[in-house]
Amino acid sequence: MSSHPVKQVIEAADRAIGAEDFDSLMDFYADDAILVVMPGVLARGKAEIRSAFVRIAEYFGHSIVVKQGEMIVIEGGDTALAICETLLDFVEKNGSMASAARRATYVFRKGAAGEWLCVIDNSYGTELLRAERGADAV
Amino acid sequence: MSSHPVKQVIEAADRAIGAEDFDSLMDFYADDAILVVMPGVLARGKAEIRSAFVRIAEYFGHSIVVKQGEMIVIEGGDTALAICETLLDFVEKNGSMASAARRATYVFRKGAAGEWLCVIDNSYGTELLRAERGADAV
Repeated sequence: MSSHPVKQVIEAADRAIGAEDFDSLMDFYADDAILVVMPGVLARGKAEIRSAFVRIAEYFGHSIVVKQGEMIVIEGGDTALAICETLLDFVEKNGSMASAARRATYVFRKGAAGEWLCVIDNSYGTELLRAERGADAV
Repeated sequence: MSSHPVKQVIEAADRAIGAEDFDSLMDFYADDAILVVMPGVLARGKAEIRSAFVRIAEYFGHSIVVKQGEMIVIEGGDTALAICETLLDFVEKNGSMASAARRATYVFRKGAAGEWLCVIDNSYGTELLRAERGADAV
């Protein structure tokens, strides 16, 4: 599974995020894709997803670098589940470097021309269970 | 998202596992679905998946009961990612009750008739990262 084409798509998307090239970034998403912006907050479709990435870039002061550590891709039924160690480097408001790691789940579908498009972008992985349960308690 | 039809499909599949009704269970899978039997071990297609469930039932001494705790379903592009607290009750060889909990990831696709079929069954969720990394170190 080490050479699965979905891995190259994810790495290209990470470079587009770092370059703030959001038009190219949208090429990796299906028209009816969904992004988990944060637990309980969803963006649906390319317009909302693009807008969310613009806000995320602003929030991190245009300093964000996304990389993947270990990636596992499981493919079945023209669908691929990528389970990734997603690493986020950014500069904090006080100028110091910071980083975060997530165990993400990304779902891709194979299009008619064999291209892989992201349909569900959930960088929070199974942490959503804990996060949403936490939110219920508030 | 509380009433997503995928939740009913998962609960019906859990009942079929408990009843060891593997023919009915296979109705919930796409023909080219994939099951993560354990980290690094995959079953592809209904014949292999059915056979894996037969072996799992034997392994647990025909005592297995699967239930879901919290379930979150995220749908995009006719595809649904279900993130579930999967709870497993079984009787150990010495006759005592035991249980296990997993934070699972199941991927479903919507068929032409609107039915939801499982294409990727990964009850290990993002734990695969840790598990496969552990396996590498052996």
